[in-house]
Amino acid sequence: MEIVFLFYEGMTALDAVGPHEILSRLPGAKVYRVAKKAGPIRTDSGLIITADSSFSDISHADLLFVPGAGNAMTLRQYPEILEWLRLIHKKTIWTTSVCTGSLILGAAGLLNGLKATTHWTALDRLPAFGATPISARVVEDGKIMTAAGVSAGLDMALTLAEKIAGPIFAQALQLGIEYDPKPPFDVGSPEKANPAIRDAVRSRLTSLFEPS
Amino acid sequence: MEIVFLFYEGMTALDAVGPHEILSRLPGAKVYRVAKKAGPIRTDSGLIITADSSFSDISHADLLFVPGAGNAMTLRQYPEILEWLRLIHKKTIWTTSVCTGSLILGAAGLLNGLKATTHWTALDRLPAFGATPISARVVEDGKIMTAAGVSAGLDMALTLAEKIAGPIFAQALQLGIEYDPKPPFDVGSPEKANPAIRDAVRSRLTSLFEPS
Repeated sequence: MEIVFLFYEGMTALDAVGPHEILSRLPGAKVYRVAKKAGPIRTDSGLIITADSSFSDISHADLLFVPGAGNAMTLRQYPEILEWLRLIHKKTIWTTSVCTGSLILGAAGLLNGLKATTHWTALDRLPAFGATPISARVVEDGKIMTAAGVSAGLDMALTLAEKIAGPIFAQALQLGIEYDPKPPFDVGSPEKANPAIRDAVRSRLTSLFEPS
Repeated sequence: MEIVFLFYEGMTALDAVGPHEILSRLPGAKVYRVAKKAGPIRTDSGLIITADSSFSDISHADLLFVPGAGNAMTLRQYPEILEWLRLIHKKTIWTTSVCTGSLILGAAGLLNGLKATTHWTALDRLPAFGATPISARVVEDGKIMTAAGVSAGLDMALTLAEKIAGPIFAQALQLGIEYDPKPPFDVGSPEKANPAIRDAVRSRLTSLFEPS
C-alpha cells in the first residue's frame, strides 16, 4: 500500500499529521511525503515539516492524501499542484482530503458531480467545482473521501484504516493513539457553537480565502 | 507568552503537532521549537519536523511542552534532555506533557509528589518517579499539566487555551479546527476496548519501553 501525502507551503500541519500518525502504521504501508520540490515546507502555524520526495519522483499512489490550508497566499500555489494530482488520481484506490484540501481536489476537477465536504466555513465554495456540499465529518463518494476541518482527519484516517486493514486493526490503532476524545467544550461544529463566536470565526477565516 | 516545544529524535509527531496547532494561535504567542541541536528531527512515524532552536538558545519559557515517544531507543536520549528541562521548568507558568512525555518530566524529577497521567500502557511507570498515576484525559497538579496518550494533547491544549486566553477564545480555536470528534468506533480507552485488542496493543507498546 503506497500512501502519498501531498505537502505544500502554507498547508495546515495537523490536517496531515493526524492522518499520517494513523495511516503510516497500516500493515505494509510505504509512506511518501511529496511536494513540488523535496525539502522543508513551512506550514501555516510556522512549524516546518520535510517533504522527502518531489513530484517528479512519484508517479503512483494507492492512497493519495491532500491537506488543507487557511490562507489566500497558499491557494495561489494550487495551479502548480493540480496537474500532478490529476495524474496520480487516475490510478489511486483512494483519493482523500482534509479541510480545504477538498477545494484543491475540486480545482483539479476531481469532485465534479460528487458529494464532498470541507471546513465548515468553505462548504459554499464546493458548488463552483461541481460538487454537492455535505455537512458531515467524513464523506465518501466513489473512491474519493473528504473530511471536514482540520481535526476531522483523525476520524477519516480511522475510517480508511477500517476499510483497508479491517475493524480490529483500526480499533487497535485508535486505542494506540488513545483517541477517546473529551474536548473541554462541546462547540466544535457551527451548529453547536455560540453564534457570536461562530460568526467571528467565519469572518476571520473566510477573509483569508481567495474568491473561487 | 513564550511557548517552547521540546523536540527530540523518535518523538511522536502528533503529540506535539496537535497542541502546536492550537497553542500557536493564542494571542501574542511566541513559539519556539527546540531540540538539543537545531535542525531536522525524525519522529517515530518517519515524518521529519524541524527544530528552529537549540537548547543553548532558549533559557526561558512561559509554557513548556514535552511530547512523548514510543520506543526504547528514544528513551535512552532522555538523560541529555533532563538538565535543560529542569532549568526551564524553574520559571515556567505551565510545564506540560502529552503521552509518555510525562515519563520524561518524571525522569527529570519534576513529578515527585504530584498527580500525573500518561499513555494508558505506561501509567504503572509513574510511581517510580514519585508520581501518583491518574487515569484521566488531562491532569493538573500545581503548574504541571499532563495528558493521556497522543490524541489527548488536543484536549489538553484547549484546556490550557481556556486558562490562558479565556473560554471565548478557546471555543473559537476549537471551532476553527472543527474539533467535534466523531471516531468511527468508541474504543479509544482501555476500559472501552475489546480486551483482546487491548492486551495486544499493551503487549506491543510496552515491549518498546525501557525498564524504568
